[in-house]
Amino acid sequence: MTEPIRDRLVTVRRHLHRHPEPAWREFYTTARLVEEIRAIGVNELAVGPDAYDPADRMAVPSDDEIDFWLERARDRGADDALLERMSGGNTGAVAVLERGDGPAIGLRVDIDGLFVEEATGDGHVPDAEGFRSEIEGTMHACGHDVHMTWGLAVLEAIAESDFAGRLVVFFQPAEEVGGGGCPMARSRFVDDLDYLLAVHVGLDHPSGEVVAGIEKPLAMCHVDVTIEGTSAHAGKSPNEGDNAMHAMGTAIENAYGIPRHADGMTRVNVGRAEAGTASNVIAERAHLEAEARGETTELMEYVKGRLERVVRSAARMHGCDAVFDVISESPRADSDPELVDVVVDVATGLHGTDRVVPTADFGASEDATFLMNRVQESGGLASYLIVGTDHPTSHHTPTFDVDEDALDHGVSVLVETIGELERRHPVSNAENAAEDG
Amino acid sequence: MTEPIRDRLVTVRRHLHRHPEPAWREFYTTARLVEEIRAIGVNELAVGPDAYDPADRMAVPSDDEIDFWLERARDRGADDALLERMSGGNTGAVAVLERGDGPAIGLRVDIDGLFVEEATGDGHVPDAEGFRSEIEGTMHACGHDVHMTWGLAVLEAIAESDFAGRLVVFFQPAEEVGGGGCPMARSRFVDDLDYLLAVHVGLDHPSGEVVAGIEKPLAMCHVDVTIEGTSAHAGKSPNEGDNAMHAMGTAIENAYGIPRHADGMTRVNVGRAEAGTASNVIAERAHLEAEARGETTELMEYVKGRLERVVRSAARMHGCDAVFDVISESPRADSDPELVDVVVDVATGLHGTDRVVPTADFGASEDATFLMNRVQESGGLASYLIVGTDHPTSHHTPTFDVDEDALDHGVSVLVETIGELERRHPVSNAENAAEDG
Amino acid sequence: MTEPIRDRLVTVRRHLHRHPEPAWREFYTTARLVEEIRAIGVNELAVGPDAYDPADRMAVPSDDEIDFWLERARDRGADDALLERMSGGNTGAVAVLERGDGPAIGLRVDIDGLFVEEATGDGHVPDAEGFRSEIEGTMHACGHDVHMTWGLAVLEAIAESDFAGRLVVFFQPAEEVGGGGCPMARSRFVDDLDYLLAVHVGLDHPSGEVVAGIEKPLAMCHVDVTIEGTSAHAGKSPNEGDNAMHAMGTAIENAYGIPRHADGMTRVNVGRAEAGTASNVIAERAHLEAEARGETTELMEYVKGRLERVVRSAARMHGCDAVFDVISESPRADSDPELVDVVVDVATGLHGTDRVVPTADFGASEDATFLMNRVQESGGLASYLIVGTDHPTSHHTPTFDVDEDALDHGVSVLVETIGELERRHPVSNAENAAEDG
Amino acid sequence: MTEPIRDRLVTVRRHLHRHPEPAWREFYTTARLVEEIRAIGVNELAVGPDAYDPADRMAVPSDDEIDFWLERARDRGADDALLERMSGGNTGAVAVLERGDGPAIGLRVDIDGLFVEEATGDGHVPDAEGFRSEIEGTMHACGHDVHMTWGLAVLEAIAESDFAGRLVVFFQPAEEVGGGGCPMARSRFVDDLDYLLAVHVGLDHPSGEVVAGIEKPLAMCHVDVTIEGTSAHAGKSPNEGDNAMHAMGTAIENAYGIPRHADGMTRVNVGRAEAGTASNVIAERAHLEAEARGETTELMEYVKGRLERVVRSAARMHGCDAVFDVISESPRADSDPELVDVVVDVATGLHGTDRVVPTADFGASEDATFLMNRVQESGGLASYLIVGTDHPTSHHTPTFDVDEDALDHGVSVLVETIGELERRHPVSNAENAAEDG
Repeated sequence: MTEPIRDRLVTVRRHLHRHPEPAWREFYTTARLVEEIRAIGVNELAVGPDAYDPADRMAVPSDDEIDFWLERARDRGADDALLERMSGGNTGAVAVLERGDGPAIGLRVDIDGLFVEEATGDGHVPDAEGFRSEIEGTMHACGHDVHMTWGLAVLEAIAESDFAGRLVVFFQPAEEVGGGGCPMARSRFVDDLDYLLAVHVGLDHPSGEVVAGIEKPLAMCHVDVTIEGTSAHAGKSPNEGDNAMHAMGTAIENAYGIPRHADGMTRVNVGRAEAGTASNVIAERAHLEAEARGETTELMEYVKGRLERVVRSAARMHGCDAVFDVISESPRADSDPELVDVVVDVATGLHGTDRVVPTADFGASEDATFLMNRVQESGGLASYLIVGTDHPTSHHTPTFDVDEDALDHGVSVLVETIGELERRHPVSNAENAAEDG
Repeated sequence: MTEPIRDRLVTVRRHLHRHPEPAWREFYTTARLVEEIRAIGVNELAVGPDAYDPADRMAVPSDDEIDFWLERARDRGADDALLERMSGGNTGAVAVLERGDGPAIGLRVDIDGLFVEEATGDGHVPDAEGFRSEIEGTMHACGHDVHMTWGLAVLEAIAESDFAGRLVVFFQPAEEVGGGGCPMARSRFVDDLDYLLAVHVGLDHPSGEVVAGIEKPLAMCHVDVTIEGTSAHAGKSPNEGDNAMHAMGTAIENAYGIPRHADGMTRVNVGRAEAGTASNVIAERAHLEAEARGETTELMEYVKGRLERVVRSAARMHGCDAVFDVISESPRADSDPELVDVVVDVATGLHGTDRVVPTADFGASEDATFLMNRVQESGGLASYLIVGTDHPTSHHTPTFDVDEDALDHGVSVLVETIGELERRHPVSNAENAAEDG
Repeated sequence: MTEPIRDRLVTVRRHLHRHPEPAWREFYTTARLVEEIRAIGVNELAVGPDAYDPADRMAVPSDDEIDFWLERARDRGADDALLERMSGGNTGAVAVLERGDGPAIGLRVDIDGLFVEEATGDGHVPDAEGFRSEIEGTMHACGHDVHMTWGLAVLEAIAESDFAGRLVVFFQPAEEVGGGGCPMARSRFVDDLDYLLAVHVGLDHPSGEVVAGIEKPLAMCHVDVTIEGTSAHAGKSPNEGDNAMHAMGTAIENAYGIPRHADGMTRVNVGRAEAGTASNVIAERAHLEAEARGETTELMEYVKGRLERVVRSAARMHGCDAVFDVISESPRADSDPELVDVVVDVATGLHGTDRVVPTADFGASEDATFLMNRVQESGGLASYLIVGTDHPTSHHTPTFDVDEDALDHGVSVLVETIGELERRHPVSNAENAAEDG
Repeated sequence: MTEPIRDRLVTVRRHLHRHPEPAWREFYTTARLVEEIRAIGVNELAVGPDAYDPADRMAVPSDDEIDFWLERARDRGADDALLERMSGGNTGAVAVLERGDGPAIGLRVDIDGLFVEEATGDGHVPDAEGFRSEIEGTMHACGHDVHMTWGLAVLEAIAESDFAGRLVVFFQPAEEVGGGGCPMARSRFVDDLDYLLAVHVGLDHPSGEVVAGIEKPLAMCHVDVTIEGTSAHAGKSPNEGDNAMHAMGTAIENAYGIPRHADGMTRVNVGRAEAGTASNVIAERAHLEAEARGETTELMEYVKGRLERVVRSAARMHGCDAVFDVISESPRADSDPELVDVVVDVATGLHGTDRVVPTADFGASEDATFLMNRVQESGGLASYLIVGTDHPTSHHTPTFDVDEDALDHGVSVLVETIGELERRHPVSNAENAAEDG
């Protein structure tokens, strides 16, 4: 544990990869991060409810769910005191380095896994090399294991450098459900940031490619739908039922048919469904988890509104009621050109960099936009970087994996960018000048 | 426990009502039945694999499922030796009374509960009077608790009478999934039966009404469908997925639209569905549990064939594959008029009887038809009786309940019918004549 | 034209077969019938508005439609004065024979064709033998050409016999849309009928078979649905449309999924649909023609109610409005056993009869039930007969045809039944007795 | 007729507006255009089969349809000789001015109307001012009346100027169905063009705004689908049918659900549907007209491929066959920046111009892309301009209309651009230089 993180990037990433935990249930993960951060040594380390106001959280699962994962983390050896601190699902942490006068820079990485069953077989490196997910049905299928590794290594590198200023690293939970960005954004740790960097690995950009700042992260919302009907004996008297199953089928069919919009890209998905109890019973209840996205916040609202109309009408058509709950939402945000320019300059010519792309579409959604918007509204600059990696299949699939060369490359890009921001920062320069004088 | 069952019908029924267990998982239930049967004293008591060939079972759940319920039964205090005998999900029992020369009469009752969450509140008697299901999400919502109570009380009454002949009581598991009738029908206990009585409570017939023999129990099959597609990131690249969720929606919609048939009544239901993992992932897999019924076996086959076509086409439409598994099937059978006449004669004027209906449509399906067909093919007679009860809502609903006056009435109808069959039985009469001579 | 109809049954039937006309547009057909009836000679011949109150008609098409067919009939040589009498779509006729004291007997036959494009080729007898429909897209695909031929031949036979009593033959239009039965039933010609006979050919009963009286003609209603949305440019701004096409698709899908009913047979069909204007325009309007049927009037109402809910919800789901118009309805009616017995007696042993079936299910719907109900409510008896015929394919299909041996057989059954009713009629007998005295 | 067109722009436009004709049926329209062009005087005027090879046409309607509209044009007074020239649906014309050495410049305008029923009422200017469509159910709802007026006025203006070079004006039929662009593009008139200008009015750009060259006209294809099943009596034996109506409903529902694509904008629409014959017959046949569009030709192909899979699977699901015909296709093309720059320069400061937008998304599709691609492949430059107009509602809707100030403004933009192209043209300059020398 005393060996520098930068020398054991692969080990750290693979360890985290083996222990994926879903949104607001990253107990073991947070405990492991805290252990590493303590070893690095920081000025402040806020865990769970010290890092944000739990009431600001979105998309929080049920108590049973949370407790199940908390116990699982305990079984795997997570520290009891930390688990207690996080009870109720208040996972994640914020680490702060205070190093004298200089810019206040935030780095945001996300820490949650996905409900994807990881692939097996020699063709899938994590299985072939023994670091496949040990948690059945859950997987780091979006590279957050890499993001956390970057977060730790950058923290360590800056801690050991002569950096002047403040570095705040946000280890944010629940990105995949759009639930953790909002509470982090509202925390006091964002208050005075001059710069915010968020970062993602891959996203179809190959190893050696750096995107200095993405455009158009889609606005997004997650929705939970419950359709409530009346059960009945399917053989004896199907007419007495109000068939939540049939209403659900109609809702799914029509949700995907929500019209494309003249003003830009939209997305809709029903990603999880469950209905009924047994084949001979007309289903009394159905549950859907869906999401709406849009190129702008308005487009997302359009899709969400249509989705609600589809669901309510489908329920009514079959004599059922529908409850339509918006679980989480994240707005759109764009990277600031000035900050993008800095990243372009830094990344170009850096060891590991083959190509620098100033800006690219993000395509998907991200709740880092909450932090970006907050920093930008206060006069700071924000950028969302991508560090490329060759990945065999798409994000969110069972065979997703990364080229581990991206680990060191990402650390370089971030550390050098932070260094350059320090050098360029007006206050810092002014003070340096004063000191010189 | 030494008090006669007939004097504690309500107690026995309510005890069983509190412990519903689903198909092939009736561990606690079987253990309780065995305990009562041993107290009565019978010539043979076959439990689980002694009662039937486990290989004949249909619709058997997964090992994990079975083990979960076996442990639950152990926790509730079921006898360890019995549980071991039933391991692997071989539940149910057959009790045999041998009482000299006379007819061989079978009585079949079913013992499984349903995945229905029982209602709460003062308006629901089982809750108001403290015998609501103690097993979350499972309920005796079809009256099998009454059927078992009848089976025990009839066994006791015949055991204590001077009945001459053989009485075989089948405590059959897994009726609701059409899985237990076939193995019971193929067992040696059915070999020489002269008569078979099957019985159900309620089915929209009020307290005091007896249906002497139903017509047209629908033929039925249960089907499991798995739709396999390809997952993808729903925001970034929905086009890369083969959406099992969308295929499922299309399949549900079109399953309900399978055309009515000129030749008679059909039914189709999708009673259970589950698909996908998370709202931001295109669903890779969907699972459906469905059933097809028909007034004849041919009509059931028609619906099943159309259902398969719907499912396969829906999968193909969305680039997915479908696996279509027939889990269980039960044929049609009708009650024999001669036996119906006996029941009519017996039931008429019996204490508790207000009205006797010779025959009525059953409407639903029943795998007792396997036993009926087997007895009828061997030259015996079979009838499926209904003993009416006022029930507040339909079978298979959370607020289903019975009028407990039906408990004693049902025992009377069955015991008197068995007595009358003994009296009328030709062999028995011949022998009586011989004795008289 | 002076040759007796009974000697030229095939000629008459084939002539009528060549000129099928749809509901309320049977101009040429009525004109031809009137010509034949005038040649027979009757006491009263009421055409169109003299036969019924036009205001009682249901499912009347548009004026343009009516005029188009009226002109077509004129072009084919129909009598101008008759056409004028029928203007506005008041087709059909009632012929009355008054022949002294005796029973008042009604015979109802229907006269309209279907929008089915008749088959071609040597395998289809009407084409091979030169009497295929001459009206493109319209066909006598349900045997009404046979029914009319029977009506004329029976009228002639009774006119030439010494029958005492009254015979009223109803040549009813618009049976296929359930539109002509109601006005005929409310006309003065039904007022004092002692007996009503309605008759159909075929319906899956082979040549030589007679069904003396059907049970369970389904109750039925026809419905017109208009869905109104908003058009938009499908490429530029699909979101600005309220898509009547999409709403229509949802409505069709879900209409077929209306649940089967515990109380008996139901049917639902969307038989005609039209929507939109061009592939690059979001459809502003959709039009559906649908029907609901049920084994009882209540079951038909159930289906109709569900259909309306489906249509309205589908419209709302896509931002559209729906207009739901019930165009016509016909109730259920059953044949009277006493009258069935008469037909059984008469038909048995008649030349051409191979088998007599007392009663059979009708399966489909019929607005003769309006007349049957009216006669039964006034104390008369009614029966709906089927005279079998081998038919190569189902009714309402392009290759439907009949075995022409059924022509003479049907006349015999009807004439002999009318004769027998005269003999058995109490009043008539009483009077005969008086005369004898 | 002798008054200059430019002085009667409103009159000409309103006349054309009153006589909208659909694709390949623009008989009256072409005749009127020819009349005006002859009055102007040109070097060559090619009508119908002289303007292009009829075999290259796409989306040609049936002969009956064509003849119906040809007769309608004759009834309205179109010249017989011209109609004969256009028989078979070979509408449209190309006019050529040859004016010495200089650039060869093409101008393409389209001439067809839409199947949209034009609005009535005082709120709709064309009705209030008496130039509403006189052709029931057809309307110039996309501004092609304006385009034709521009085409004539530009031709006249250049004819009367001292322009040196060649001007070819394409009056292209059948743009709305993507059917006329391909034959025009393959004609000899495109062979040596140095420049091609295509132009559209409105498209959400207000009066006074000019878009110098659009980007991203969507690639598009039109598809005709026929679903063939088996008819049956809907009441008697619905199971005997193979329901084309139900298959159609499933196809419509799922067509709209074709997934959005990661690579860019897509569109899908089912714009016209017709199925079945009568409410009591299971529909034997259904017909759909649909279109697929994409931001690139590849994306259009993706949507088309998915649409075909949806349709074929929906047919198979219901026992039907599907015929999937691609009626027309148009590729994507982009405006050349050099030519865009010229238009920007010209339009800026022109009387009537409030704002010049260099480029904008087109959103919709256009088969002018065939001509643009052809010119660009031969080394020429092409641009697709938009001249803005305030329009009360979207294109393709019943209440579409234009601000007639756009008439003169559009002529100015086009005439001045043509003049500027002459001045800048290298050959022309070179020759001028030579002459000067």
